[in-house]
Amino acid sequence: MREIVARALAEDIGRGDVTSEACIEPTLAYRAELRARERLVFSGGPVLAEVFAQVDPQVRVELHAEEGAWVEPKASVATLRGSARSLLLGERVALNLLQRMCGVATLTRRHVEALPEGSRTRIADTRKTTPGLRALERYAVRCGGGFNHREDLSSAVLIKDNHVAAAGGVAAAIQRARAYAPHTSRIECEVDTEAQLREAVEAGAEIVLLDNFQDDAVARAVEAFHGKVVLEVSGGVTLERIPRLATMGVDVISVGALTHSARAADLGLDFEVES
Amino acid sequence: MREIVARALAEDIGRGDVTSEACIEPTLAYRAELRARERLVFSGGPVLAEVFAQVDPQVRVELHAEEGAWVEPKASVATLRGSARSLLLGERVALNLLQRMCGVATLTRRHVEALPEGSRTRIADTRKTTPGLRALERYAVRCGGGFNHREDLSSAVLIKDNHVAAAGGVAAAIQRARAYAPHTSRIECEVDTEAQLREAVEAGAEIVLLDNFQDDAVARAVEAFHGKVVLEVSGGVTLERIPRLATMGVDVISVGALTHSARAADLGLDFEVES
Amino acid sequence: MREIVARALAEDIGRGDVTSEACIEPTLAYRAELRARERLVFSGGPVLAEVFAQVDPQVRVELHAEEGAWVEPKASVATLRGSARSLLLGERVALNLLQRMCGVATLTRRHVEALPEGSRTRIADTRKTTPGLRALERYAVRCGGGFNHREDLSSAVLIKDNHVAAAGGVAAAIQRARAYAPHTSRIECEVDTEAQLREAVEAGAEIVLLDNFQDDAVARAVEAFHGKVVLEVSGGVTLERIPRLATMGVDVISVGALTHSARAADLGLDFEVES
Amino acid sequence: MREIVARALAEDIGRGDVTSEACIEPTLAYRAELRARERLVFSGGPVLAEVFAQVDPQVRVELHAEEGAWVEPKASVATLRGSARSLLLGERVALNLLQRMCGVATLTRRHVEALPEGSRTRIADTRKTTPGLRALERYAVRCGGGFNHREDLSSAVLIKDNHVAAAGGVAAAIQRARAYAPHTSRIECEVDTEAQLREAVEAGAEIVLLDNFQDDAVARAVEAFHGKVVLEVSGGVTLERIPRLATMGVDVISVGALTHSARAADLGLDFEVES
Amino acid sequence: MREIVARALAEDIGRGDVTSEACIEPTLAYRAELRARERLVFSGGPVLAEVFAQVDPQVRVELHAEEGAWVEPKASVATLRGSARSLLLGERVALNLLQRMCGVATLTRRHVEALPEGSRTRIADTRKTTPGLRALERYAVRCGGGFNHREDLSSAVLIKDNHVAAAGGVAAAIQRARAYAPHTSRIECEVDTEAQLREAVEAGAEIVLLDNFQDDAVARAVEAFHGKVVLEVSGGVTLERIPRLATMGVDVISVGALTHSARAADLGLDFEVES
Amino acid sequence: MREIVARALAEDIGRGDVTSEACIEPTLAYRAELRARERLVFSGGPVLAEVFAQVDPQVRVELHAEEGAWVEPKASVATLRGSARSLLLGERVALNLLQRMCGVATLTRRHVEALPEGSRTRIADTRKTTPGLRALERYAVRCGGGFNHREDLSSAVLIKDNHVAAAGGVAAAIQRARAYAPHTSRIECEVDTEAQLREAVEAGAEIVLLDNFQDDAVARAVEAFHGKVVLEVSGGVTLERIPRLATMGVDVISVGALTHSARAADLGLDFEVES
Repeated sequence: MREIVARALAEDIGRGDVTSEACIEPTLAYRAELRARERLVFSGGPVLAEVFAQVDPQVRVELHAEEGAWVEPKASVATLRGSARSLLLGERVALNLLQRMCGVATLTRRHVEALPEGSRTRIADTRKTTPGLRALERYAVRCGGGFNHREDLSSAVLIKDNHVAAAGGVAAAIQRARAYAPHTSRIECEVDTEAQLREAVEAGAEIVLLDNFQDDAVARAVEAFHGKVVLEVSGGVTLERIPRLATMGVDVISVGALTHSARAADLGLDFEVES
Repeated sequence: MREIVARALAEDIGRGDVTSEACIEPTLAYRAELRARERLVFSGGPVLAEVFAQVDPQVRVELHAEEGAWVEPKASVATLRGSARSLLLGERVALNLLQRMCGVATLTRRHVEALPEGSRTRIADTRKTTPGLRALERYAVRCGGGFNHREDLSSAVLIKDNHVAAAGGVAAAIQRARAYAPHTSRIECEVDTEAQLREAVEAGAEIVLLDNFQDDAVARAVEAFHGKVVLEVSGGVTLERIPRLATMGVDVISVGALTHSARAADLGLDFEVES
Repeated sequence: MREIVARALAEDIGRGDVTSEACIEPTLAYRAELRARERLVFSGGPVLAEVFAQVDPQVRVELHAEEGAWVEPKASVATLRGSARSLLLGERVALNLLQRMCGVATLTRRHVEALPEGSRTRIADTRKTTPGLRALERYAVRCGGGFNHREDLSSAVLIKDNHVAAAGGVAAAIQRARAYAPHTSRIECEVDTEAQLREAVEAGAEIVLLDNFQDDAVARAVEAFHGKVVLEVSGGVTLERIPRLATMGVDVISVGALTHSARAADLGLDFEVES
Repeated sequence: MREIVARALAEDIGRGDVTSEACIEPTLAYRAELRARERLVFSGGPVLAEVFAQVDPQVRVELHAEEGAWVEPKASVATLRGSARSLLLGERVALNLLQRMCGVATLTRRHVEALPEGSRTRIADTRKTTPGLRALERYAVRCGGGFNHREDLSSAVLIKDNHVAAAGGVAAAIQRARAYAPHTSRIECEVDTEAQLREAVEAGAEIVLLDNFQDDAVARAVEAFHGKVVLEVSGGVTLERIPRLATMGVDVISVGALTHSARAADLGLDFEVES
Repeated sequence: MREIVARALAEDIGRGDVTSEACIEPTLAYRAELRARERLVFSGGPVLAEVFAQVDPQVRVELHAEEGAWVEPKASVATLRGSARSLLLGERVALNLLQRMCGVATLTRRHVEALPEGSRTRIADTRKTTPGLRALERYAVRCGGGFNHREDLSSAVLIKDNHVAAAGGVAAAIQRARAYAPHTSRIECEVDTEAQLREAVEAGAEIVLLDNFQDDAVARAVEAFHGKVVLEVSGGVTLERIPRLATMGVDVISVGALTHSARAADLGLDFEVES
Repeated sequence: MREIVARALAEDIGRGDVTSEACIEPTLAYRAELRARERLVFSGGPVLAEVFAQVDPQVRVELHAEEGAWVEPKASVATLRGSARSLLLGERVALNLLQRMCGVATLTRRHVEALPEGSRTRIADTRKTTPGLRALERYAVRCGGGFNHREDLSSAVLIKDNHVAAAGGVAAAIQRARAYAPHTSRIECEVDTEAQLREAVEAGAEIVLLDNFQDDAVARAVEAFHGKVVLEVSGGVTLERIPRLATMGVDVISVGALTHSARAADLGLDFEVES
């Protein structure tokens, strides 16, 4: 997180804020309220603190909202106090980061709230994250009540159609992966058909990703294999479909949109002179 | 660009693609077509090339679409040839970057196409960019036919309400900025009212940003000051409003949404074994 | 690997090889044979190539030994040709790295060769690697015929005694880990007693690490749980004990000594002037 | 040191300790004793402190053993207090580093203790260090009572057989080095024969390295040149031979094994809950 | 600034100050006065503080001279207190940096003092700065009472003879620049003749750089265009010529010598043992 | 060198050369001659090549002057061919670096040429170099025919007045240094008086730096100790005094001015369109 913030500040500040240096005395102190301007799930308090710690360690940041909590419009999620120049220097970066994080957390929460009461189905993210911001977006997904999928290409095996073709079939691919990967790795295999699903389970896959399966095919998969393998659904998932999938007993629903299509949440900073 | 791509690859690859290493022979060669899956303005050819140059300099990237050109659904924008492992290794990062860039370029183009024929009004971006990706997003805005606003806080003076308040008025702020900034800097001042606008022009601002002005106020501003200062409109800009603003003769319309609310464009890679 | 080599070269070269600059003409060309000075399993060809590619891209490196092959004393594993200054500049770093890698590969191979013919038991490494060289040492373990354990603290769950105590028992720890970790993670639990082993299996651990179990206890564990969980033995493993453990049917034997106690293998460079 | 520690932590932690995050409450506090599990010379207190300062500045590290002191088995060399998660996060890296440093210091001390009482002979290290850890290993050598040889290729002249051959003889090489090197540099020359030794002294070498000389040849060298040049012995040095060499009056005995063959010393951390 | 100082310290310290480590006890405390050894304009207090903060945060730095103030010979500009080793460790870097900064500030001040009383003409620097130290030298110019020209090639448009030739004339170059550059950029154009000057003004240049104009040509330029464009003079500027140029009403005089030919100012550190 | 050049380019280019991008077609090719505009000793050919290799590997750099050769005014020292944009992009950095390097080389050569024919006295530099550019300036000194003093604080022992005072005398300081430093280090001691000189020689210093000695005292020092220790003179050295000092038989004359007071040599680039 430290590096992401440092990079963002360097990118936005360049060689310094020439306007504030010209117009604002270094001694002027501000108090600023970070307010939600719409209903949102909050995520990013530690990022906010880090931005201003890097800009100026004298700035005090007091957080009012808990990570993952719903916040109502106009509510203050944090109070900042410190040099006016410093608060303006960090403002844009803080907002750019938090608007994105709250956007991801809020969209994730909407998916999680679509699950039926008591459901054990997980809403999970994917690798379709903003380049450079994956760590923050995965964190925001967790704030929203979702779960993370594999971190990167090295942290789990996920066999897709190209791997199946290259290895000469689902079973062959799974065997090669099992032989190659550390024994600490689970093997996940993406399947397009029920025949492939059966083959994957028999070959010892521990997770099967049902890619673009229709509801009835998903239902049959759950009936046949629930509790034997982890069943993950991906592709064509909408908010409306989630209750049906969860009720069937799917273990994981992974949704690329959580990160690649989240809208920036609306938050802003209101400044006033601190007497 | 090189650093952005390197960072994105490191983030996504981790210690290597364990699945491809297990399932795909190092000698297998692929040919892949990068296809638009919806109508979009293309942006990011050099980024695509850079991703694969970093992954494996043996991969050949042939671009078919020009930067900034409209591309029809199913059209191939690029052909990639090389090791199957290498193509799969760079796939996700390439798509994550290009989907975002094409998304920004396409949204910008929609705004630009909303201008009346022959209009000299500029559609411009803002600093509301994705942290860490500003250089790519600004480039995508230009591909879309838009213009860039200031790069960062150091590259131009932009006096906002807090600066005005701290300096003791619009005129005072402009004078302080003129005295402080290099003589190579233009002075831009944001104003909320027509009185402030008049004060800014008289104090020598070279650009005035009309913040959240209604159409009639914009019209009066243009009438009074067109050609004397650069008039920029920001806040509450919609696609519908652009023709009206342009027809009035506004010089610049800056739109945060170009970068903070662009949807990821839909592009994908189709692989086949290269014989 | 590139970074490890770059760092090692910077550390050893400082601001340049003052002796060679003084004594050797820049045009003098050498041919050097890298020879084993004892019987060893070779590992590190790509590292050798990388060292000299960084020192001087003109140096040609021709490898004669395959990664993981036994090499006899005096055999040449590689021929290097190029500027005398460049070969001497990279010599020490190349040897320091390869001696360590071949040492790890050779020690690993001795463990692997201790397995009975046809055994499917894996010899695995641990996190007891040389700080900064983990990637190379893990690679050398694979060259030796061994397997890697988890890469780092983030890439798999391994519950140890402190985690059990903190979570309030083996079952509780496993449940917490299952709830927290991505669904792509296997859960491994270290146990000290057969009671804990039973509890771990029942709570759904997928791998159980039998820590310092005597042979009879290992045998009972295999009998009870073989095929239901992956059984890993660690602690007090000697070369003599490996055949017994493998014959019982243990899945994995992890050995810290592979990396923390491997002796540097003896390799050296013999130079001659290239006419 | 800061960089070595940072790199080692990054390598071992990856994206975080998923097991401790799942199983251990953030508020749980531990006290840990770092204990010797065999008799050893301690080295690495500042490294231990740095590891935990980087992991979590709240962790307190109290050192009980002095650098370079013999420590008895079971003795505590340091007490650590702080968050259980933080102590477990730094444990492996701290041990990997200190086991190596104490191993080097202990092996060096054994060589130093082999010197006769009152001897002024120096036991010195070489460039055969672990890539990336040279600074720590050189420090450990000093903790063990040894001395350092040149830091890297740029910090002193050391003429070896290849330089002699390229320059056209021992005397020619020394003259070229003297002409080229800063006047602040001593000139050391490695010799294989007594004739070369004589030539080196006459040509003005200030240090002569007797490479693989037998005892009688060393004795003659000392008799002829003691006090005129610094005489260094290297190659084929064993603990048994050290007293003889020192008694003859050799100035320096350099031993590659100090760093390339030191065994990891056995130290471990014992944790208990801090009430 | 932090990076410049860190780099300079790394360059000068190497692996540590072997002389002080050998000769000075770590507990010895010094007090040092940084004194001007000639009359100079002081610049660099924050740099001085940063050097010693990086060397040893225990060192206290008390500044007596204000940035930009004239300091008389022998006057103490700062008092430093702390470990003798630390003060000696930072001494050379601190002096190398401050002598340069004070040299630039002093030379700039001499140019500024050559302006007639009440003149509004700016003395400005150029891009002829010491590679790697531009930020410090620009700051020193401001301490001396000068102004900065553009920071780098991206922060303003400055059309020179090659651009004019390539674009097909002064007017064409200005139009291309206006069309390409952000609307926040002023357009500066260098001209060699009065005809070009006229063309530049007519084409809308906001700043014109009169390159190597004689006094009479400058006078005509001011008469014709004062107040309409910013007139900058460069080339062949001497201290003697400045009053004439300023009296004519030139807006900016840019002087490469401020940074590329400033002499190192004479400052030194006097140490005494702190009782 | 690579890093120095990269840093200088980043500093000067910022986010790109907006003027050339606006005014010059990417296909336009230039040929440029780098010409001396005064008589100078050339130094920096490899730096010139590196600048343009980093800017654009397509640029061809042909060097006409040898490192260390006198170059007459108007002579071309190098021809560059390539994209006009690329040549202009690297121009300022190349000139800023080479003007400084040639300045240092030329000033050094003037000192070297002041030595009597056949003299073996060395003209040496000091640590008074430009922060961040030490490697280039030391290289330029060698091009000028001078020699380098110690690279940094770690690469040689140089006992100064503060070390003498802290250690309790010249002899004590030398003994401490001898005991502490690697045996590969020469010990240099700075002395202020002839009594100290005698003490230093007796204590075994190998180099004595006569600080601010008058000519007669230098003469006595040479008479007493020539050939026994290396005698270095520093402080108050002028071009006029060099022949006297050299004739006396001083071994080394070190001159801070070589680097801290060298004037930028005058070189420039002349461009023409390449047909």
